[in-house]
Amino acid sequence: MSLTIVGTVAFDAIETPFGKTDKIMGGAGSYIALTASNFQKKTQLISVVGEDYPKEYLDLLESQGIDIQGIQIKKGEKTFFWSGKYKQNMNERETLTTELNSLESFDPIVPEEYAESEYLLLGNLSPTVQRKVLERMHKRPKLIMLDTMNFWMDNQWEALNDLIQMVDVLCINDEEARQLSGEYNLVVAAEKIQSSGLKYLIIKKGKHGAMLFGEEKIFAVPALPTRQVFDPTGAGDSFAGGFMGYISATQNISFEQMKNAMVAGSVCSSFCIEKFGVENLYNISQAAIQERIRRFEELTRFSI
Amino acid sequence: MSLTIVGTVAFDAIETPFGKTDKIMGGAGSYIALTASNFQKKTQLISVVGEDYPKEYLDLLESQGIDIQGIQIKKGEKTFFWSGKYKQNMNERETLTTELNSLESFDPIVPEEYAESEYLLLGNLSPTVQRKVLERMHKRPKLIMLDTMNFWMDNQWEALNDLIQMVDVLCINDEEARQLSGEYNLVVAAEKIQSSGLKYLIIKKGKHGAMLFGEEKIFAVPALPTRQVFDPTGAGDSFAGGFMGYISATQNISFEQMKNAMVAGSVCSSFCIEKFGVENLYNISQAAIQERIRRFEELTRFSI
Repeated sequence: MSLTIVGTVAFDAIETPFGKTDKIMGGAGSYIALTASNFQKKTQLISVVGEDYPKEYLDLLESQGIDIQGIQIKKGEKTFFWSGKYKQNMNERETLTTELNSLESFDPIVPEEYAESEYLLLGNLSPTVQRKVLERMHKRPKLIMLDTMNFWMDNQWEALNDLIQMVDVLCINDEEARQLSGEYNLVVAAEKIQSSGLKYLIIKKGKHGAMLFGEEKIFAVPALPTRQVFDPTGAGDSFAGGFMGYISATQNISFEQMKNAMVAGSVCSSFCIEKFGVENLYNISQAAIQERIRRFEELTRFSI
Repeated sequence: MSLTIVGTVAFDAIETPFGKTDKIMGGAGSYIALTASNFQKKTQLISVVGEDYPKEYLDLLESQGIDIQGIQIKKGEKTFFWSGKYKQNMNERETLTTELNSLESFDPIVPEEYAESEYLLLGNLSPTVQRKVLERMHKRPKLIMLDTMNFWMDNQWEALNDLIQMVDVLCINDEEARQLSGEYNLVVAAEKIQSSGLKYLIIKKGKHGAMLFGEEKIFAVPALPTRQVFDPTGAGDSFAGGFMGYISATQNISFEQMKNAMVAGSVCSSFCIEKFGVENLYNISQAAIQERIRRFEELTRFSI
């Protein structure tokens, strides 16, 4: 019961009030796959990099048991590079550089073994590329999650909306939900987004937690309170990776299990933001994960 | 085991995108007492109004079993009047009018019966007036909650900080917590506010719910998702009234019980915002309260 992921594997350079990195390992695909690998032992990643991508970064993915057959290495090309700077409050960030490079002509290859996956996570990328991956699967996976962002709403509205009709779970943040629906109130926004048949919608609210809508039910989980957000990069991707890693490992796609997956995803985000980049996302011990799950229980449980 | 409340009893005129009222019953004291009366049968209110205050409004308080001996009616004076207008997103509001009137020279009277109360809620008012009420109690109540706002931080910083040292629970919103502490991160803000000995701090986050800090623990409750906020006026007061009404009625001031009181307060806020003014706050059936408590359970419960 494997999990197939498509997403960028890239260089990031990040500046926060706490420090600054050179080019480090980044990209939604890296964050998602590394996070998912804490739960799912058969994690398979589809992506593209240039010739300049360090072998040690690819080795790191493999060392976590991630299947990287699906990562194309483009001769003579460079790897996607993003750099950004966070403001003092860590809520807003400014993109300093976006060099698409090898991503520009990305035509995803879905290896035979991946094409049978029962779980598919379409990480933030052009909806055209995401759709290609979906169409190249041999059979429809049991559960498909789509992650996207405002950029694709601005630039590929129709392709994105078509794709949403083809998946089971859409994972976006509150501002994106407002943009996609044209509604400010998130309950109304969720109803509108789901009105065309989408089964499950996750709305991420950053430090205010996340909400799951589906089967006419709502579940809300807070973010784990923390004294310091060191680097918010990848918090949303690690949430998605934790969610789908957990769901696919337990092979249970009920709403009740999705609630647990929301907690697992939130736990992963809480690890992510404590260090730069992907540093804190892999090799998380099961004990450490369990300890944070207990903290979520203490944080939310009441017995009125 | 009575609950004594001090707070304004006033006229409000409210404009929202959904409608507009003339002068209606308002004031933190009205919201708090009416809400608390759903739980606490011995609710006692200290306030001041002018000669112009309608008997029917005072009768309404009494009809809910609220003791209004503590409300002074000032001959030849007018009642405190506030009017405000909410913007489209319902998050921001503009104050159009503030006429202090009888509130200006308010010297609170604490009737004999009130002075023995075991529970005291100091609703948003000048810290000087709040302190007078506290000092006029015959003995220190078992639990004292203080509600305040940014206006008093701007104008009576020292008096407010002195008063905070004298109470058990401080109830403020996220922006106020940031102003009071000078810290953006709410966990750090809470630590700083509690560092001078305050036992419990509640931070209200509006549509993002509320958090309780105390005994080195944190509890978070979301707001009940709703399709429409009709009028947010009094949401914070009804939260405080629900919290202290519940705590005082059950006579249990443990952290575990405060979690339940956070849920009870959130239930009351969810009723409050559905109609103009105090309309939806009194005569709430126990069945309706229980039904919403169950909705909070469904919203937050997971069994990982």
